[in-house]
Amino acid sequence: MKQSQLFTKTRREAPADETAKNAQLLARAGYIHKEMAGVYSYLPLGLRVIKKIEDIIREEMNAIGGIEMKTSIFQNKEVWEKSNRWDDGVVEIWFKTKLKNGGEVGLSFTNEEAYSNILKQYVNSYKDLPVFPYDFKEIFRNEARSKSGVIRGREFYWKALYSFAKDETEHNAFYEKAKVAYQNIFKRAGIGDLTYLTFASGGTFSKFSHEFQTLAEAGEDTIYVDEKKSVAVNKEVYNDEVIESLGLKKNDLVEKTAIEVGNIFTLGTKFSEPFDLKYKNEKGEDKLVFMGSYGIGLGRLMGTIIEVMSDDKGIIWPEAVAPFKFHIIEIPSEKPEVKKMAEKIYKKIGESNTLYDDRDLRAGEKFADADLLGMPYQIIVSEKNADFGKLELKNRKTGKTEMISEDEIGKFL
Amino acid sequence: MKQSQLFTKTRREAPADETAKNAQLLARAGYIHKEMAGVYSYLPLGLRVIKKIEDIIREEMNAIGGIEMKTSIFQNKEVWEKSNRWDDGVVEIWFKTKLKNGGEVGLSFTNEEAYSNILKQYVNSYKDLPVFPYDFKEIFRNEARSKSGVIRGREFYWKALYSFAKDETEHNAFYEKAKVAYQNIFKRAGIGDLTYLTFASGGTFSKFSHEFQTLAEAGEDTIYVDEKKSVAVNKEVYNDEVIESLGLKKNDLVEKTAIEVGNIFTLGTKFSEPFDLKYKNEKGEDKLVFMGSYGIGLGRLMGTIIEVMSDDKGIIWPEAVAPFKFHIIEIPSEKPEVKKMAEKIYKKIGESNTLYDDRDLRAGEKFADADLLGMPYQIIVSEKNADFGKLELKNRKTGKTEMISEDEIGKFL
Repeated sequence: MKQSQLFTKTRREAPADETAKNAQLLARAGYIHKEMAGVYSYLPLGLRVIKKIEDIIREEMNAIGGIEMKTSIFQNKEVWEKSNRWDDGVVEIWFKTKLKNGGEVGLSFTNEEAYSNILKQYVNSYKDLPVFPYDFKEIFRNEARSKSGVIRGREFYWKALYSFAKDETEHNAFYEKAKVAYQNIFKRAGIGDLTYLTFASGGTFSKFSHEFQTLAEAGEDTIYVDEKKSVAVNKEVYNDEVIESLGLKKNDLVEKTAIEVGNIFTLGTKFSEPFDLKYKNEKGEDKLVFMGSYGIGLGRLMGTIIEVMSDDKGIIWPEAVAPFKFHIIEIPSEKPEVKKMAEKIYKKIGESNTLYDDRDLRAGEKFADADLLGMPYQIIVSEKNADFGKLELKNRKTGKTEMISEDEIGKFL
Repeated sequence: MKQSQLFTKTRREAPADETAKNAQLLARAGYIHKEMAGVYSYLPLGLRVIKKIEDIIREEMNAIGGIEMKTSIFQNKEVWEKSNRWDDGVVEIWFKTKLKNGGEVGLSFTNEEAYSNILKQYVNSYKDLPVFPYDFKEIFRNEARSKSGVIRGREFYWKALYSFAKDETEHNAFYEKAKVAYQNIFKRAGIGDLTYLTFASGGTFSKFSHEFQTLAEAGEDTIYVDEKKSVAVNKEVYNDEVIESLGLKKNDLVEKTAIEVGNIFTLGTKFSEPFDLKYKNEKGEDKLVFMGSYGIGLGRLMGTIIEVMSDDKGIIWPEAVAPFKFHIIEIPSEKPEVKKMAEKIYKKIGESNTLYDDRDLRAGEKFADADLLGMPYQIIVSEKNADFGKLELKNRKTGKTEMISEDEIGKFL
């Protein structure tokens, strides 16, 4: 798209009330608008990043048999009373509101109850299982403090998948596939090298849950990393017995701070019991469904990428999640050849792949904006370049530039 | 997709508490799940319809210069106090909730304030205008009664675009384009013939607003239609003076009930004034931005399609919004050729275009399900058809069947 068509603008200074690097950079670059602490609107460039992340997650969930639906934000009191999670004394982070004709409703803070209640309508026989529904939706959590930018919101955009299996064996088979799918997501989003499968506290039905933790100074979690084995242990379960049971050695583990970018969890029959979610097996016996949960916050992933992939000039997007792969910087000139060349390249690369800075601004301002916005490749079209029939291609991450011909652009598409 | 992979099932009877035809059919067919009055979850097939409608709307909005963003559901009290719409005495349909650390937040019931507040950050000069941002989001309205299924929800999924122009002339040019875009949307969604551009009450800045009204028995609105001129007048402004001013004649107007599927509205400076949303013109003078609003409910459009496009057997989806264009019905047989042929056709048409009923059920049940689910084309693969190397293609709308060869399917893709 042409930058002159984009209504957002960059700012030199971050808003005074933003302390998190991710929110400072996103606000300066015009990707987000802060509505209140922990609540952000995604402006056009920010939404493009969210959509790219959403597409990656959707592909990986569909590849392991996920089936997408769209559950409501409003939650029914009667449904949540079944699992004893309606009470504010049990769940502190509820947001609730009142219906005009009486009665309270909750705003979803998670999806186990809504999903169990829906599946209860449809699961009768072993033939109906397994099933792996998921959705993308807004989630609301009444956090007392919210200072981590888009990493910890009061309102945030989330993918949750729940697995409904006949038994633990069938569950485990899916759980292992989900682990791989999650690792694929973080690899594709550009933070695979920094993200560790991490053993964390489990529950009644499994000794551990699994978190995906990305090493970052801004992290709120402490983990112990075995780099060679590419696994980590969350501080909450870090003790000699656990280390040994995982076949790890204390000397190989290094303490790090990290951001939890996803987690997967064996729920067992914790929710199928209160919802009486049963199926008839091949012998006609009633059996409880065995469940698992698989969550990931899209804004949190976006914020984490920025925490680990930026420099003092701005954001450095990995290709797969960048709003645009290319940023064409036309250096204003009186020679019509410059604009002509820029327009030609823009047409060649395509408007969905490139942001084209066609604005009438000084070169220095344009370079600063491009570095702040963080597209992976900058293509600089100046008088000098037009004269020589060459383009200057700058890699935002390495800072390296090379001169290429128009035809060579094809290599990068 | 294979129907055996779909966890939803059809039901013979609609839930007793659903009185609206749209909700009865959608619930019976397993497209939606009722969470409470006026609040529905969209199950996998229902979400597919919503996504197709979303894609149509997005294409039409982008074609007239729309730029998508994603604003928050939580609304800031201070922002709404500027326009005097925070007070429950002024706006009765607010849902509000409380932050743990004090203070109230609202759930969006519309977007004028949030948009004006965001644009205020970015609009300074005439060069920044016009701009046409929009988003798709959940909207919440505290309706006392909600009995119209997905047509009038307490929570519903909505597209809203706001236009920000330099003056009335620039506004009017966009407003006329938006009219055409809206007509395109309803045409593409299959209800163009039944949908009338309708003059309705305006405001300070324009004599009329424009509604798009679809003729339907279940409609809550009364309109007067001039079929030849393809326009209508809402009862709220229907009087001799208005009829004459529109160049219409009372004798040509026929009273009808209709569902409002969209509306567009000139806002003028109603919101730019309280938000002090101004730009500097070419002479350096401060001018107020001139606004318009363009809304459409996706669930409402889906429900309206069903109200006007169904029969006693079930739903009849228009092609462009059907979850799948084809429904392959394999009639269970001991001859392996039948399944083989069905699988081959499924592969040929592609899983994104077809629902393949591979379940081990009686033919009668499968036919009833297919009619209820409402895909535009049913392809029946039976022993007899497999023997003759022909397929039976049934048009769900006309009920007509024809025998075609495998190769002829290409014509319908």
